[in-house]
Amino acid sequence: MPLSPLAPAAFPDLPVIDGVTFATAEAGVKYANRADVMLALLTPGSTIAGVFTRSATRSANVLDCQEKLGGDQSGPAAIFVNSGNSNAFTGKHGTGSVNAIASAIQDTTGVAANRVFTSSTGVIGEPLPHDKIIAKIGELHTAQTTAGLSDAARAIMTTDTFAKGSTRQITVDGKTVNIAGIAKGSGMIAPDMATMLVYIFTDAVIGFEALQWVLTDNTNKTFNNITVDSDTSTSDTLLVGATGASGVDVTGNDDFAEALHAVMLDLAHQVVRDGEGATKFITIDVTGADSDDDARKVAMATANSPLVKTAIAGEDANWGRVVMAVGKSGAKADRDALSISFGDIKVADNGWRAPDYSEDAAAAYMKGDEITISVDLGIGSGSSTVWTCDLTHEYIRINADYRS
Amino acid sequence: MPLSPLAPAAFPDLPVIDGVTFATAEAGVKYANRADVMLALLTPGSTIAGVFTRSATRSANVLDCQEKLGGDQSGPAAIFVNSGNSNAFTGKHGTGSVNAIASAIQDTTGVAANRVFTSSTGVIGEPLPHDKIIAKIGELHTAQTTAGLSDAARAIMTTDTFAKGSTRQITVDGKTVNIAGIAKGSGMIAPDMATMLVYIFTDAVIGFEALQWVLTDNTNKTFNNITVDSDTSTSDTLLVGATGASGVDVTGNDDFAEALHAVMLDLAHQVVRDGEGATKFITIDVTGADSDDDARKVAMATANSPLVKTAIAGEDANWGRVVMAVGKSGAKADRDALSISFGDIKVADNGWRAPDYSEDAAAAYMKGDEITISVDLGIGSGSSTVWTCDLTHEYIRINADYRS
Repeated sequence: MPLSPLAPAAFPDLPVIDGVTFATAEAGVKYANRADVMLALLTPGSTIAGVFTRSATRSANVLDCQEKLGGDQSGPAAIFVNSGNSNAFTGKHGTGSVNAIASAIQDTTGVAANRVFTSSTGVIGEPLPHDKIIAKIGELHTAQTTAGLSDAARAIMTTDTFAKGSTRQITVDGKTVNIAGIAKGSGMIAPDMATMLVYIFTDAVIGFEALQWVLTDNTNKTFNNITVDSDTSTSDTLLVGATGASGVDVTGNDDFAEALHAVMLDLAHQVVRDGEGATKFITIDVTGADSDDDARKVAMATANSPLVKTAIAGEDANWGRVVMAVGKSGAKADRDALSISFGDIKVADNGWRAPDYSEDAAAAYMKGDEITISVDLGIGSGSSTVWTCDLTHEYIRINADYRS
Repeated sequence: MPLSPLAPAAFPDLPVIDGVTFATAEAGVKYANRADVMLALLTPGSTIAGVFTRSATRSANVLDCQEKLGGDQSGPAAIFVNSGNSNAFTGKHGTGSVNAIASAIQDTTGVAANRVFTSSTGVIGEPLPHDKIIAKIGELHTAQTTAGLSDAARAIMTTDTFAKGSTRQITVDGKTVNIAGIAKGSGMIAPDMATMLVYIFTDAVIGFEALQWVLTDNTNKTFNNITVDSDTSTSDTLLVGATGASGVDVTGNDDFAEALHAVMLDLAHQVVRDGEGATKFITIDVTGADSDDDARKVAMATANSPLVKTAIAGEDANWGRVVMAVGKSGAKADRDALSISFGDIKVADNGWRAPDYSEDAAAAYMKGDEITISVDLGIGSGSSTVWTCDLTHEYIRINADYRS
């Protein structure tokens, strides 16, 4: 798979997060000659928060994580991930695999099974060969290192064309708090070979309820507002582990919330930039809606419209298709109050083509690889921003030419 | 544009519908050297019923038709259609164009303007050159013929690769009632160059309320259950004209409702068969849902999923993507009660790959050009059927390589 043209220049230097160590190994779940499992071990007292896919057919791992979330946070914790097999739609066998892996990690590392959070990504409906994984737990335990987060970013990749990482630091009373995260996903959500997985670590001190709140709030402004192809994985998982090793309590600290937001937004954008077949990074800004919900409906209808996405792939400033998407969104709209811009170029205004619209200027703008479409509904103060990519021949090639 | 591989063998022989005449002309709205306007004139007392797009940005013509529907049915009536320009998102100019055309038809033919129903299809956001159209009204009036319905089917085409017609007859007390209809649409719903327009004529006797009821009921079982690309036109229009010329009253007649249903389903399937880039005609049958609404959610989520549609384009029996679509649909689902079949081949059962599933048999089935996916949710008695087509390179070529 060639590197996405929208890939960042380089993988960032991720800092050590005191209180958490990492290791990867080659378990041969599906891929040969590459790391496909990763284990993170977090110091006693680490807080684990998480958000997950809302799919009604979510995987055994997701159901297990959701059950374990919010329990006693005093002991050590573990996060385990395998690629190559999603353990989704695998019936009771899937639950058995999760339990077997958690038990093996408990036996080897001493982390209680109810503090072992697992994720699996890869093909759907095939029994997970968990024996191959369990055989590597000892190696994953002895190889633990504080510097292993970058390797972990590579171990969890499936159809990704680049590894995804992001980091921010804040200073509180002269002390540094570090946040570092990794993600995988391309095609937000291609259930056979892709899924969005995100793991973020911080040395901040923060309790479960506060961490879960700031995570959920930021998810609604980042990962819940990206879409590649409107399809939803059975396995999407985002976990945050806070080890407390910095000694800095960030409960209620806005700087921490903003830094976490920045890491999450950066990773979310990287997922879009690695969207299957993407050649354009698209921002849809909706303002003037009757409510934020209505604004999001318009933004998502536009971002998911095959006709809008193909127009952008074709570098066509086809604002008629945006009018169509507004119309189908289900949001309250008044044709005569609607205005639409591509970048700074106003293309439609007051229910009509903008009087000084220049097709040449719009055509030049569409040749860039970062496209912003602004829609002002002109009837209220609701707003929303959604990020997506274009729909290209390469998306069809990846998804129609691939055989399960 | 090459003929769709799913096109019917031939355009059907449409019968004369007594009480309605047709003519087409070359107005040069956008296309040269082809008929692009059609006028149908219906005898006094004809009943006109209609259903329309629910888009919030619907065209001036649609808003005008909706206003005129259900008035006094005693006078003559007219249906006018142009291709090449949709008169959508054209502000107050759009309303002016509709009124100018209706007035011109009133002046020339004597049909009251409030009984003139107009549709426009083509590019969005360009002022409709209604003077070119008005200049042809005289020619359209003098050229009226009872045999012109087939020519009308061709005049309303835009990106369609074949003209679409359908007919049924019923016998009531030894007398024949005829129904004949035409449609255009390909890409259910590509707002620049396509839109779904359907006109059905019958010589039955039936009042407005009864005709509107049977039309709406049948629409929910036919045109509302097809999708090509999930995008919704600003101009979709379906009008039925009943001239009463047969002298047969069909109010409450089930045979008439069924025959009308058959014509509508046939035309709806033809629209899918001409879906942009389509190479497979796909039926999604959902049963066992908590409600009919839930069943339709699952069917539509599956039919609109780019991953399901690309898998079928690739002749891949990728049932994991169907599991994903069920999960994201928002319908109540129980993974362990779910079963999925491709044709007669059960691929998944009881939350797990079906025990006697043969990949070879499924691969052979996927090579056909008519694919049925059956999803049984196993939790209730709700059901729904939706029709769609696959998503191919040709769809991208048509929509990304075309410039407005």
